[in-house]
Amino acid sequence: MTLPAAECAARTRRAQALMAQHDLAALLLTTEPEVRYFTGFLTRFWESPTRPWFVIVPASGDPIAVIPEIGAALMLTTWISDIRTWISPDLDDDGVTLLAQTLQEVAQGDIGLPFGPESHLRMPLADYHRLTRLLAPQRLVSDHGILRQLRMVKSEAEIARIAAACDIAGRAFARVPEVAQPGVPLAQVFRRFQVLCLEEGADWVPYLAGASDPGGYADVISPATEAPLAPGDVLMLDTGLVHAGYFCDFDRNYSVGPPAPPVREAHARLIDATRVGFEAAKPGATAAELFSAMNCIVNPGGDVAGAGRLGHGLGMQLTEWPSLIPTDHTVLAPGMVLTLEPGIEVSPGKLLVHEENIVIREDGAHWLSPPAGPEMTVLT
Amino acid sequence: MTLPAAECAARTRRAQALMAQHDLAALLLTTEPEVRYFTGFLTRFWESPTRPWFVIVPASGDPIAVIPEIGAALMLTTWISDIRTWISPDLDDDGVTLLAQTLQEVAQGDIGLPFGPESHLRMPLADYHRLTRLLAPQRLVSDHGILRQLRMVKSEAEIARIAAACDIAGRAFARVPEVAQPGVPLAQVFRRFQVLCLEEGADWVPYLAGASDPGGYADVISPATEAPLAPGDVLMLDTGLVHAGYFCDFDRNYSVGPPAPPVREAHARLIDATRVGFEAAKPGATAAELFSAMNCIVNPGGDVAGAGRLGHGLGMQLTEWPSLIPTDHTVLAPGMVLTLEPGIEVSPGKLLVHEENIVIREDGAHWLSPPAGPEMTVLT
Repeated sequence: MTLPAAECAARTRRAQALMAQHDLAALLLTTEPEVRYFTGFLTRFWESPTRPWFVIVPASGDPIAVIPEIGAALMLTTWISDIRTWISPDLDDDGVTLLAQTLQEVAQGDIGLPFGPESHLRMPLADYHRLTRLLAPQRLVSDHGILRQLRMVKSEAEIARIAAACDIAGRAFARVPEVAQPGVPLAQVFRRFQVLCLEEGADWVPYLAGASDPGGYADVISPATEAPLAPGDVLMLDTGLVHAGYFCDFDRNYSVGPPAPPVREAHARLIDATRVGFEAAKPGATAAELFSAMNCIVNPGGDVAGAGRLGHGLGMQLTEWPSLIPTDHTVLAPGMVLTLEPGIEVSPGKLLVHEENIVIREDGAHWLSPPAGPEMTVLT
Repeated sequence: MTLPAAECAARTRRAQALMAQHDLAALLLTTEPEVRYFTGFLTRFWESPTRPWFVIVPASGDPIAVIPEIGAALMLTTWISDIRTWISPDLDDDGVTLLAQTLQEVAQGDIGLPFGPESHLRMPLADYHRLTRLLAPQRLVSDHGILRQLRMVKSEAEIARIAAACDIAGRAFARVPEVAQPGVPLAQVFRRFQVLCLEEGADWVPYLAGASDPGGYADVISPATEAPLAPGDVLMLDTGLVHAGYFCDFDRNYSVGPPAPPVREAHARLIDATRVGFEAAKPGATAAELFSAMNCIVNPGGDVAGAGRLGHGLGMQLTEWPSLIPTDHTVLAPGMVLTLEPGIEVSPGKLLVHEENIVIREDGAHWLSPPAGPEMTVLT
């Protein structure tokens, strides 16, 4: 499932070209997608918060892994050859000295870290401050958005993986009537839907949220309750499943019994908004323009709703840059993978949200998820 | 699935007693388990890295949630009443000003953050530095390990959830012969095993790692390959599934066809080491003593092996404090939930690792996972 070494090498060279522009002597990376982006290192072991993991991208040459010994065997299966390890957990020095020594050896100058929106530093704060002191006068500074800029445009290999994830989820959503009928507890629907995802080929199912409530739902992030599906409910399932290390992220709405007219109309309007977003998603358009195109339809004259955006990037993570919001002026380019995620408040506190996945090509958007029609599937 | 409000309230009072000892005016929390520990807020939406979430525990009174508007409806279902929101993502100010204002309103003095091992700050570094400047001269300092100390000892409600997760995994492991036979690709075994976990009652399956290799495996953190199970392989599956927000974390080893004598002996020795660890796991013993008791058997005369430890805490996360290592002198106390996880190198580069879950009671350890016997289950 590891990406070809050539792809990781090409990413490294692109990063180094940008680092040169910003006069960075190295990048220091600590999170799962950042580490995997340059190494191909794929493991679910990040679920454990115990151990820090570090990858250094020097100004020239290949990345260096500074990682716990427990990961050495798996890292050796990637294209990375300079792998430096320590026995972790170490309560006195969990890799900080080894990391500082390695940075001082390979980098003379400022070291860039992801600093901006959607990023975080996956190491203890005490160790961050210690590293800062050990490196001084060498500085830890912002990566100037290099990671964001690089990861936002996907390769054909990445797009193929996201497309495969979308196909799997599409087949699972088509089978929802097999597992969801009036009277079945929502928690059971959630379990069975995850089974469908696995049966259809998901490697794992990191994300599932949803609801089943009369006439719409209060939010799109809730876990299941034990309440049984009831006639008049809108059942929404929103999944991010993983195939070969890449996510899909889209949802489907089902009507338990025939939909009431306002629900039916809201759903049709969401599909219309999604289609309008699809048409607008051409190279050269901005994320903000895509927001406006859809918001005109779901929220005429209004500003951004409580959910905060009408779609986002997608890839190694469930959500990535950019955001479809009025203030994100990212220019769409071929290779970007996006979700279109318009929402409507059907009545006070009752939402309907629809989501599809697309890829931007030279000639405009192409569907990755199988686009839903205006009529809701009815569960009986 | 939310814990009773009384439990979150009691946790808050215990935290405040410790905060008083350390002269902290507030705690500031940013990660999923930290936020959930005080609020009961349970969602898989943390899979999205986009939005920061903040909870403040003041020196007295109830916690305050400073969160994106998208989470308001779900937070309102918890015991938290002071919920302050902003529309996120906001590229200019993603909650930082609101957070600083709230901290200045409710806290006069140092604000504690988890700083030490196994913790991280889940907000952009740029925002951390901005918050530091906004709050000055008020300081962001270490929480003195308060979160670690509190979370290490579980309530009866927490133990019951972990026990239920262990029961579910135990039933799934017992059914592995249904889905794993010679010739089945390991990736397919992984998918089918996750289906078994869901069928037996898991809410979701955040963690699965393992391997199937001749005479043992190179590590315990790898994802599946497409290689088919072959006679002579040891199949290991290590899962962390979630029930009502709490994990189990244990593994099972299977022999594909009859095990070779060294593999069979190694497995029996692991079971013996686990039993010795179980006997040693009494209140008053230390994590280091538990390490030594098991290490004598799996690695006589040796120091800590590459995996770094022989077990760890368990609860809202797959791995928690303490670590069973020579330098962790945490004293075991009733209510702690631990994994016992001895490993043996059967031959160079070929490991066998066994893992069980226990809870410490006044009278010693009790099994949470159904303990495996010395003989490996044979897959045919």
